[in-house]
Amino acid sequence: MSNYTKIGKVDGARTELHDKLGLTGAEISVNTLPAGAAVPFVHAHKANEEIYFVLSGNGKVIVDEEEISLSEGDWIRIAPAGRRQFFASPDSPISFICIQVRAGSLGAYTADDAI
Amino acid sequence: MSNYTKIGKVDGARTELHDKLGLTGAEISVNTLPAGAAVPFVHAHKANEEIYFVLSGNGKVIVDEEEISLSEGDWIRIAPAGRRQFFASPDSPISFICIQVRAGSLGAYTADDAI
Repeated sequence: MSNYTKIGKVDGARTELHDKLGLTGAEISVNTLPAGAAVPFVHAHKANEEIYFVLSGNGKVIVDEEEISLSEGDWIRIAPAGRRQFFASPDSPISFICIQVRAGSLGAYTADDAI
Repeated sequence: MSNYTKIGKVDGARTELHDKLGLTGAEISVNTLPAGAAVPFVHAHKANEEIYFVLSGNGKVIVDEEEISLSEGDWIRIAPAGRRQFFASPDSPISFICIQVRAGSLGAYTADDAI
């Protein structure tokens, strides 16, 4: 069996990569909110931390009632307990990656895990 | 304690985000290889799967002697055992994210882990 799985560029409102890539240690989604739109709910997690990376555009995320502005190239890590909701700017869409991993699951990494 | 950590855009040959973002379930690096350059070694992993996302440019990765072309927007998941080496094109740099997670570590996710 091959040790890799590759896919090309993904588009659309939301694409989940877990099954497409055969992931076992993460879920990754690629998301776009049109200008003025928001994820229609506030959520937190039981076990997973999330890392968001802004691919393009502008917006904000509210974490535990604190408003944090987001623009291209920004990274944000949110702990499982953080109550979060994402918004595009009124005048700009926002595209971002969301990486979901189990908090505390990483042991050794990089040089210490490499062969 | 705050439930989030945010950083702005990162540049340079290689930036590791684990400590900057306080990650506990992943290591993420942002990497750029100049045109004609390569990561100067072949590596595999003991426990971690890696997911690469191409931010810009062109290049290739060799996995277990198979050559796979890479361009902007491509995603590739490489199993721990895959022997891998990354190259920029002779005439283009390549910038990519590498997400390193423990293979098999993700339990429930998305709707099943959300509150």
